[in-house]
Amino acid sequence: MDQYTAPITKLIEELAKLPGIGRKSAQRLAFHILDMEVRDVEELAKAIIDGKKNTKHCQICGNLAEGDLCGICSSVKRDRSTICVIEDVRDITAMERTKEYKGVYHVLHGTISPLDGIGPDDINIKSLITRLNEDIKEVIIATNPTIEGEATAVYISRLIKPMGIKVTRIAHGIPVGGDIEYTDAVTLMRALEGRREM
Amino acid sequence: MDQYTAPITKLIEELAKLPGIGRKSAQRLAFHILDMEVRDVEELAKAIIDGKKNTKHCQICGNLAEGDLCGICSSVKRDRSTICVIEDVRDITAMERTKEYKGVYHVLHGTISPLDGIGPDDINIKSLITRLNEDIKEVIIATNPTIEGEATAVYISRLIKPMGIKVTRIAHGIPVGGDIEYTDAVTLMRALEGRREM
Repeated sequence: MDQYTAPITKLIEELAKLPGIGRKSAQRLAFHILDMEVRDVEELAKAIIDGKKNTKHCQICGNLAEGDLCGICSSVKRDRSTICVIEDVRDITAMERTKEYKGVYHVLHGTISPLDGIGPDDINIKSLITRLNEDIKEVIIATNPTIEGEATAVYISRLIKPMGIKVTRIAHGIPVGGDIEYTDAVTLMRALEGRREM
Repeated sequence: MDQYTAPITKLIEELAKLPGIGRKSAQRLAFHILDMEVRDVEELAKAIIDGKKNTKHCQICGNLAEGDLCGICSSVKRDRSTICVIEDVRDITAMERTKEYKGVYHVLHGTISPLDGIGPDDINIKSLITRLNEDIKEVIIATNPTIEGEATAVYISRLIKPMGIKVTRIAHGIPVGGDIEYTDAVTLMRALEGRREM
């Protein structure tokens, strides 16, 4: 490493801290940055700083926001009586891609995971409960079909049901285009359980 | 993409411009940056700016340098009578790893490649010629064993030989640990040509 100058060594070190970027990739990126126009390098650095600095969390749902509210919570087109509970802001992107869902969201920013020391108070559950009032018709729980996701779904449903609000869970089953032969037993079991009349 | 805020979209776009980083990786990196401490984000951005701004090219050899001269050209330990000509600053790192070479370098920053419109005047050849004087005993040409690298080597040797300076080319042959059975014909031919008495 000592062949490189201090600023380059530092740059490689910083880049190598990013996920999925090893030493070799960091070197390649660093040399690419050296070859870039000064203006482009400044734009990249500015985007990093601005991305971090100008991103807040929506005060209602926890989604990423530039101001106090996210684009979805501040939109007049969304149905505020349906709340979809998700683990991560990235899940909103996936849900929006369906172009089917017109309700609003609530981002938990994690799941209950006792093994990792994450309890119900460590994720965004309290703020979900305070959002619930007589105008809310349905809470759709769309946490991932993992042990933690399921446990979190059960915990939340037990909390909300006594309030007289309808709580639903997104369906699990064979993915569209999937193959029954290669579907794991748990998914197949869920697909059977969730069968509907034709 | 419209689910993301403008600063995040911009950040993803800038990251996706880097080599080997696609849309998905850029998104993952962007969200990682959002999760980082502000201080660490600032350090990353600063390293990018500083790496670019504080890196110059050595006025003698074209290697990366913090000041006017690179660490090798300003070192009193190096033998200035031997110049190793390489294509890229990264090749210096590879050469230095051998811990054998004690001479200095000359970085071409490319190769002659007529198909890409790169002629002898577009790479660092002129500055190599102006470096040559009666104190130079040998010029080792260590361009890559590609068509362009070979052509560049031949061009430079024809330029320097008439000046009465010894010009050598690094050996091509079977890599150490390599297998003759799986060695391509061109490499094997070169290995035969370069055979030495034992």
